[in-house]
Amino acid sequence: MNFVAALNEVAAKNLLVLEERIRQAIADDPFIYEACAPLFKGGKRLRPMLFLLCANSKAACPPEKTMPLAVALELIHTASLVHDDIIDASKKRRGVETANSKYGAQIAVLVGDYLFAKAFQLVADNDYDVQVQLILSKLVKNLCVGEIMQDRSLFEVPTLAEYYIRINLKTAVFLSSCCRLGAIVAEMDAREVENLTAYGSGLGLAFQIIDDLLDFFGDEKITGKPHGGDLKSGVITLPIIRALAVSDDASALRKLVTGGNVTTADIDAAIKIIQATDAVDYCRTRAEAHIDSARVNLPPALKTSVSLALEQIADFVVDRTR
Amino acid sequence: MNFVAALNEVAAKNLLVLEERIRQAIADDPFIYEACAPLFKGGKRLRPMLFLLCANSKAACPPEKTMPLAVALELIHTASLVHDDIIDASKKRRGVETANSKYGAQIAVLVGDYLFAKAFQLVADNDYDVQVQLILSKLVKNLCVGEIMQDRSLFEVPTLAEYYIRINLKTAVFLSSCCRLGAIVAEMDAREVENLTAYGSGLGLAFQIIDDLLDFFGDEKITGKPHGGDLKSGVITLPIIRALAVSDDASALRKLVTGGNVTTADIDAAIKIIQATDAVDYCRTRAEAHIDSARVNLPPALKTSVSLALEQIADFVVDRTR
Repeated sequence: MNFVAALNEVAAKNLLVLEERIRQAIADDPFIYEACAPLFKGGKRLRPMLFLLCANSKAACPPEKTMPLAVALELIHTASLVHDDIIDASKKRRGVETANSKYGAQIAVLVGDYLFAKAFQLVADNDYDVQVQLILSKLVKNLCVGEIMQDRSLFEVPTLAEYYIRINLKTAVFLSSCCRLGAIVAEMDAREVENLTAYGSGLGLAFQIIDDLLDFFGDEKITGKPHGGDLKSGVITLPIIRALAVSDDASALRKLVTGGNVTTADIDAAIKIIQATDAVDYCRTRAEAHIDSARVNLPPALKTSVSLALEQIADFVVDRTR
Repeated sequence: MNFVAALNEVAAKNLLVLEERIRQAIADDPFIYEACAPLFKGGKRLRPMLFLLCANSKAACPPEKTMPLAVALELIHTASLVHDDIIDASKKRRGVETANSKYGAQIAVLVGDYLFAKAFQLVADNDYDVQVQLILSKLVKNLCVGEIMQDRSLFEVPTLAEYYIRINLKTAVFLSSCCRLGAIVAEMDAREVENLTAYGSGLGLAFQIIDDLLDFFGDEKITGKPHGGDLKSGVITLPIIRALAVSDDASALRKLVTGGNVTTADIDAAIKIIQATDAVDYCRTRAEAHIDSARVNLPPALKTSVSLALEQIADFVVDRTR
């Protein structure tokens, strides 16, 4: 399922404006533009689009109130990807050479820092409520804590609870913050703010679980990444956690994923072990449960077209191929 | 000259409060605390102290209006040092093992990001004017642009103008922003805000020029770094720029500093060539000129004790040994 197809007409129009605003936001300095423009190619814009949909979910919200923050959310996301690519020493993302591969980790650290700072500048420059700054800074903090948690326990099997803490900090807080910010900017009432936040949280948990599944079973042509990348770098996710709990080959699997040096043959072996269990169904069922909770949290008073788009985004999250 | 000796009594008392507030700010998460606490050891706190002095320069400003921002300034400075140490692959700073050496570049990237985010959170959490956020985000952006400029022209000789652009972005904007923020928080009039900003700017230019001189001629026992570290990593600073302009051995020196692989013998040779010229005096004279301009910009209406402390900090900047 295509992400843009899930958006309603207004959102699709907003997407075009957003692209232009992103371009403008990184155009302050010629080198920054050269380095950053490719980083923004091919992203789904899931985060700013969630924000824009929520901000326009009861009545149209003027672009001057929404666009700077929408751009800031995408800049923060991209900054975190640039730093992630350093952490994983990734050479490509979305088929495009990463900043660390092109310019070295040194410059990539600074390009990421620049994007974070520019995001906060955009928000400060556009008269947003201090709440907005607070949500953004906490979201970045949470992203870091989630990533640090992950990087400090490579090749260790997390408990289910630890896995959930991690994906919450890494992904669900970000997506729920986007929805929450939309509701705040639109001056929705407290209950609606909480409901849209809960929608984003469910969406985020499902998104990360499906991401973790796609890492093993996605179509490599579509994901653009070879299978088992997480495992190779020592990140142990839900399919493995489940397989370890139920597989007859659990001890072989455990040895394989905690050994510290995962070969392509190991990844193939792990995939076979996972496939012999109910782990794929289990992950999918969990993701669907989070999507259902996202759905029931959608406030009833939204415009029909927005409700539909948010439901379709929920469908997209579980049906997507990358 | 000792930095703390340059402070007045009120500032010295503030310094103790500041240390405790920094400790609290990084105590949210046990790992972050473990990783960050050593990073704050031994710093001069020049930036937050400039801010605190300026904020209290006409009348006492309540700590709840000053301390969160003072802490934020030190967090931003430390975050930039953590990322610098990744960039330079430094093993030690101020005699303490760097985050990248202790935990790897991966975690160090995230620790730096965390500190940036925490700084913005502190400001958002404490009801500062949106101007404050704007100054902070621009200052981080400028830091990044200055560093990127530097990293993209390693082993190239900058013009004097390029050198000044770089040290302005890297250092002077930060120091002048600290003073400016102090004046803003104290609600000083527009002219005084500009004057204190100019004081900080002169101070910052002088600070960086002296830093660049200490890199060649500082007492290694005091600076804690071997001579010529900048040159080794390809950063060409004012002493070299001057020596290249006036030395009879300019062509040998140029070859040496632009070759891309600077040995200890090369550094010794470069130091000898610099010492045979007026470069040291020239740098010192320039730094003193910036300090004099800092001094004349001090607004006349400051409390005597604060004026004195700011003048002593100016003296400290040119007389310091690290």
